[in-house]
Amino acid sequence: MLDPSIAAQLKRDDRGLVAAVVQQEGTGEVLMVGWMDDEALHRTLTTGRATYWSRSRQEYWVKGETSGHRQWVRSVALDCDGDTLLVTVDQEGAACHTGDRTCFEANVLLAPAVD
Amino acid sequence: MLDPSIAAQLKRDDRGLVAAVVQQEGTGEVLMVGWMDDEALHRTLTTGRATYWSRSRQEYWVKGETSGHRQWVRSVALDCDGDTLLVTVDQEGAACHTGDRTCFEANVLLAPAVD
Repeated sequence: MLDPSIAAQLKRDDRGLVAAVVQQEGTGEVLMVGWMDDEALHRTLTTGRATYWSRSRQEYWVKGETSGHRQWVRSVALDCDGDTLLVTVDQEGAACHTGDRTCFEANVLLAPAVD
Repeated sequence: MLDPSIAAQLKRDDRGLVAAVVQQEGTGEVLMVGWMDDEALHRTLTTGRATYWSRSRQEYWVKGETSGHRQWVRSVALDCDGDTLLVTVDQEGAACHTGDRTCFEANVLLAPAVD
């Protein structure tokens, strides 16, 4: 069960979830955003493997359990509002289910200016 | 008005919003997470200043307009699900309303191991 002192700080949405921004340690790449309930956060903090609540499948989901694209948890921080986590990980292979390294590289709406 | 070809790709929550993860260009720091509706995204893409929808105040909010802690938009990408944006910015001063550089530094739940 999630540490009550942490649980007391979470500001969950109406589905009982907080957003989790997942960042590669070292490079700083933002890999993906997942969702965690209290139990998923508890597992993430205690097992060292990033674990989410799948909103579409309505089940817990240990990242990489089927794909092999595991996320090894390095640090977890809660934001000032209590509704978003920043999880730094060491990502094996692709973070995105499409096979891309990150979920943000396929669809650029505004490209950075070239210096 | 937001480009209809972009609007068609957004998967909004029941409040009509998508999450926006905001990252400092260059350093890769994750600064904060805000929320955008179509109009906030339109303004972000066209004015070069990060603009959010404030869920608490129920109004548009140009980051830094009162604090001076402006965010100059460098790039915007939409994730594979269409429900999260990654906005890279050049942040002036503190991104967090507490005065911290980022919203994630005050409350570390799991600290990185020291090598």
